Amino acid sequence: MNFEEKTLNSKLIYDGKVMKIIRYEIVTANGYKSFREVVVHNGGVVIVALTNDNKIILVKQFRYPLKRTILEVPAGKLEKDENPDDAAKRELEEETGYRAKNWKSLGYINTTPGICTEKLYLYFASDLEYVGDHPDKGEVLQCFEYGLDEIYKMIQDGEINDSKTICAVTRAFCKGFTL
Amino acid sequence: MNFEEKTLNSKLIYDGKVMKIIRYEIVTANGYKSFREVVVHNGGVVIVALTNDNKIILVKQFRYPLKRTILEVPAGKLEKDENPDDAAKRELEEETGYRAKNWKSLGYINTTPGICTEKLYLYFASDLEYVGDHPDKGEVLQCFEYGLDEIYKMIQDGEINDSKTICAVTRAFCKGFTL
Repeated sequence: MNFEEKTLNSKLIYDGKVMKIIRYEIVTANGYKSFREVVVHNGGVVIVALTNDNKIILVKQFRYPLKRTILEVPAGKLEKDENPDDAAKRELEEETGYRAKNWKSLGYINTTPGICTEKLYLYFASDLEYVGDHPDKGEVLQCFEYGLDEIYKMIQDGEINDSKTICAVTRAFCKGFTL
Repeated sequence: MNFEEKTLNSKLIYDGKVMKIIRYEIVTANGYKSFREVVVHNGGVVIVALTNDNKIILVKQFRYPLKRTILEVPAGKLEKDENPDDAAKRELEEETGYRAKNWKSLGYINTTPGICTEKLYLYFASDLEYVGDHPDKGEVLQCFEYGLDEIYKMIQDGEINDSKTICAVTRAFCKGFTL
């Protein structure tokens, strides 16, 4: 079965700081002309960090598009051409003040495959040492530590609704890292 | 602790079919002037549909921003002012050909809270009856059915990387609907 959508032409709509918007005219696999509005994003990293007393670190911060604070695992955008492994170490230390000796890949996710190129690389980090946090200026956040059972209850009850957090915790659990 | 970012002004960058782009000048809670580029999206619905022989339905389709096909649970955009419960029924039937007698809410997720307003309403559907699919013109997709153990293996192994699919299956599992 042929699924591929072929590009006829493209137009750059917006070239911003964290995203580009491109509008493509396309032909679907069954011959319809249509268009696709695509958010081009550099991607990022997401970290499930397990403390030495088996808690997972969550970060509370204001998310402007939602106009409220939410709880999520530490995460951040990739700088241009930055290696995801390096970015994960940088973001964990910036946001939580921890350095981890043990890092494992949890693969990746696509957050919004219908409209956005964003790919997030997921990590599990443990064997932590506190070295002091240093968030970016303008980044206002607060760290909390929860047991895995508490995190699962918050996912179940809808207190945690951030997709990357649910995905990263699920992958860490599936792979047996949080047992 | 004060986290709130206050809006100074806003500019509509793009008013498209499935998204608007707005650029806001803001002040962070600790007094820095900055800006936020926001994708405004209508949101959508996501369905974990359990067949009468305990399989979960996945849909294979081309996702233009990723330039490849992926496996995901049935999902679709909300029409303007559409009730999410109605949208879930519409999308399940359009994409899979099934009508469900049993519907349960699995809450919601935010897919990309840093840059996008998108909120997806998650559902569990069971007690299915096949009435025939009728995808939108230009929508090319193929349905597959997998056991929950197979789905979890695909999530673990990185064959399923779609965040809404991982979140919806995890919520359904947490709430005991897929046992």
